[in-house]
Amino acid sequence: METPQRKWNVESSSSSKNAVNPIRRIVDKGGFKPNPNKSTISLSIGDPCVFGNLNILDYANDLLIENIKSCKFNGYPPSTGYEFAREAVAKYVETPTSKLTSKDIIIASGASGAIELAIGVLLNEGDNILVPKPGFPLYECTSKTKFINVKHYNLLEKQDFKVDLEHLKSLIDDRTKAILVNNPSNPCGIVYSKQHLLDIIEVAREYCLPIIADEIYCDLTFGEHKFYPMASLTDKVPILSIGGIAKRFLVPGWRLGWVAIHDRDNIFLNGRVIEGLVSLSQVVLGSNSLIQSILPKLLDSQNTQVIEWCSKITKTLESHSKLTVDMLSKAHGLKPVHSSGTMYQMIEIDCSKYEDIADDNEFVGKLLEEQSVFLLQGTVFSLPNFFRIVFCAPIEKLTEAYERMIEFCEAHKKK
Amino acid sequence: METPQRKWNVESSSSSKNAVNPIRRIVDKGGFKPNPNKSTISLSIGDPCVFGNLNILDYANDLLIENIKSCKFNGYPPSTGYEFAREAVAKYVETPTSKLTSKDIIIASGASGAIELAIGVLLNEGDNILVPKPGFPLYECTSKTKFINVKHYNLLEKQDFKVDLEHLKSLIDDRTKAILVNNPSNPCGIVYSKQHLLDIIEVAREYCLPIIADEIYCDLTFGEHKFYPMASLTDKVPILSIGGIAKRFLVPGWRLGWVAIHDRDNIFLNGRVIEGLVSLSQVVLGSNSLIQSILPKLLDSQNTQVIEWCSKITKTLESHSKLTVDMLSKAHGLKPVHSSGTMYQMIEIDCSKYEDIADDNEFVGKLLEEQSVFLLQGTVFSLPNFFRIVFCAPIEKLTEAYERMIEFCEAHKKK
Ligand SMILES: Cc1ncc(COP(=O)(O)O)c(C=O)c1O
Ligand SMILES: Cc1ncc(COP(=O)(O)O)c(C=O)c1O
Repeated sequence: METPQRKWNVESSSSSKNAVNPIRRIVDKGGFKPNPNKSTISLSIGDPCVFGNLNILDYANDLLIENIKSCKFNGYPPSTGYEFAREAVAKYVETPTSKLTSKDIIIASGASGAIELAIGVLLNEGDNILVPKPGFPLYECTSKTKFINVKHYNLLEKQDFKVDLEHLKSLIDDRTKAILVNNPSNPCGIVYSKQHLLDIIEVAREYCLPIIADEIYCDLTFGEHKFYPMASLTDKVPILSIGGIAKRFLVPGWRLGWVAIHDRDNIFLNGRVIEGLVSLSQVVLGSNSLIQSILPKLLDSQNTQVIEWCSKITKTLESHSKLTVDMLSKAHGLKPVHSSGTMYQMIEIDCSKYEDIADDNEFVGKLLEEQSVFLLQGTVFSLPNFFRIVFCAPIEKLTEAYERMIEFCEAHKKK
Repeated sequence: METPQRKWNVESSSSSKNAVNPIRRIVDKGGFKPNPNKSTISLSIGDPCVFGNLNILDYANDLLIENIKSCKFNGYPPSTGYEFAREAVAKYVETPTSKLTSKDIIIASGASGAIELAIGVLLNEGDNILVPKPGFPLYECTSKTKFINVKHYNLLEKQDFKVDLEHLKSLIDDRTKAILVNNPSNPCGIVYSKQHLLDIIEVAREYCLPIIADEIYCDLTFGEHKFYPMASLTDKVPILSIGGIAKRFLVPGWRLGWVAIHDRDNIFLNGRVIEGLVSLSQVVLGSNSLIQSILPKLLDSQNTQVIEWCSKITKTLESHSKLTVDMLSKAHGLKPVHSSGTMYQMIEIDCSKYEDIADDNEFVGKLLEEQSVFLLQGTVFSLPNFFRIVFCAPIEKLTEAYERMIEFCEAHKKK
């Protein structure tokens, strides 16, 4: 440059401007403050560790401590993860009809990192991805930083949040490159039936679109609701399945997730998708080595102490879900959706039943202001007139929160 | 879409195709195999943990174990890192003339993650960033995944790898948005003088370009060579300084790095760079919570046991560097560049001295084939006719490797 520029003109990238996480945008805006005379009960964040009642089993900590002392896991693992860790994940997520090897697994920094890899490898700028509405906002946030367009397909709130298949199909165009399915679902708390998953897969097959299956809540299902890995239900549609230990083992801060590559007829291989995932993993170099080191024992399906602990945690969450539905069914104007898994419950609000509450934003805001109970409004997930409860808190806390909510609904009842 | 597409047409994104890490590309290509009759000695990877002779201090492991047992650090930290961890980093990296608070620190998944944030926030597609040649290949790899162009400014191999300032200036154009400076440098093993850093800063000031200072090797300097944080040398040029615990504490697998924001005259603030970094951090949600939990004690400048351990490690590395120069100065055709820091040494090869070695690729390949010593050729770092040695291995291993190298050079001597 001949004459130097003489003025500072630094501006953040468009990518970073697009990165805004919609949850933060809405949550940070709210001008409501908790009631200073009541202790705050926060049921808003999808983090099972907030209250200290749900902790990872000691056995896992002991493994970790042993491996720390060995000083054998401090160096760089390969960017896709330690071979033995990838192998452990492969065994953990493969199904009888969809076998995997270590090469089919990419270890990532949390399921969030895995989602970034999966979206980043399948879509170019200007392409579009179909994501559920209501749905987990990170899909949109990640896509937008890459200038990938997001189209929202509707989940039918009156039909247990099933996918509106006709709406899904209507969104597909030439630039559609993937369908993202989240099952079991955040925020809906719903586990899809085998038949419904087959119906979704049929759309993908018909339009020749790969599926990104966010299955991070796969092990958290209640009662007779059974989780079916999407990859187990098709030998035609290639699937990138997302998973991680954050929710199952109650350690979201540990940041370990993965992409499992379920190829079909070499569609991913020939499209260089597998190679692309490996390349992308080299940019940030994966997940913490110590956490990776305990995966073989933690994910071993023969390890009864882990298996038993897991089913105990699921039972606990199921009982919290039941309490939530039982109590809030009694609240004036509220209609809980029965959760069949995860740690979430959507509750419908009938604002016509209240004197002075116009929508979910106001419900959540006033509830905080009067009763110091924190919830996330449905608007955050593009589902107005609902709110989401995270029911991980201890039973006493949940009970107190729900009593306050019942009182709140009563107080605002239309005369 | 009216008629569904009936053919599978999945292709990996251009971004993933651009992500190829040049080190892997060159290293994986080499058709050379180690000599089966000699044990392999690998001095190629920048990982101090490979040989087991350099380990993190027990004190740090003890802290980690204590925090694991507490079960207090399993939940999601804020996306920018725990407040206390950010504060610890702020204290660790601030300088008397460039004070920082926790708000100026973004914790990331390794320095690699931090570099991705810094490049991602300052540059748009089609913009360009100036990076050193020879230099760490990740800068290019990360930029390319974002369609950011990379221009290489020359380091002068005959002048202790100083920046060729005229060349640097000649590259600047309208789309140049940042200068990346790596000091102390990988692969050169050089620590720049205060005056030279001031000269670089002067270019940035003149052209009004922010600096990304990759200072991950800041504490690893030898003898009277002193590290000057770039931010301490200017009150005009805004700087994003990159750091991490990988190298200093010998734990690259732990994946903890940071961006330190040294704003000047609110240039970053007004350009929404700080906000942009926070937004980008929300996409992947930062670094492992347990590792973050030990930062306050690990980075405490009053903590004498840590400080003493650190200086012991530096002394060890310094003695390895000295051994490297002493021994390889005797090898026919080799000229070691004196390292003033890091864990790297560049060695110049004079191929005219050999009968049958055309370039660095051949030198490194034949050395592996005959002597089972693994090195990285300079070509990987865009510096042909050099190779890089990582001198972390134990003294006995290094001695053996160097003896083999001397023998190798002798065997190929031009008659
Ligand atoms: C549906 C879904 N996918 C992915 C994630 C991210 O998981 P991780 O914490 O492993 O990044 C979450 C976290 O809440 C989630 O709800
Ligand atoms: C100059 C330089 N910057 C950054 C990094 C990456 O560090 P981390 O392992 O913390 O991602 C390295 C690693 O070798 C390096 O040499």
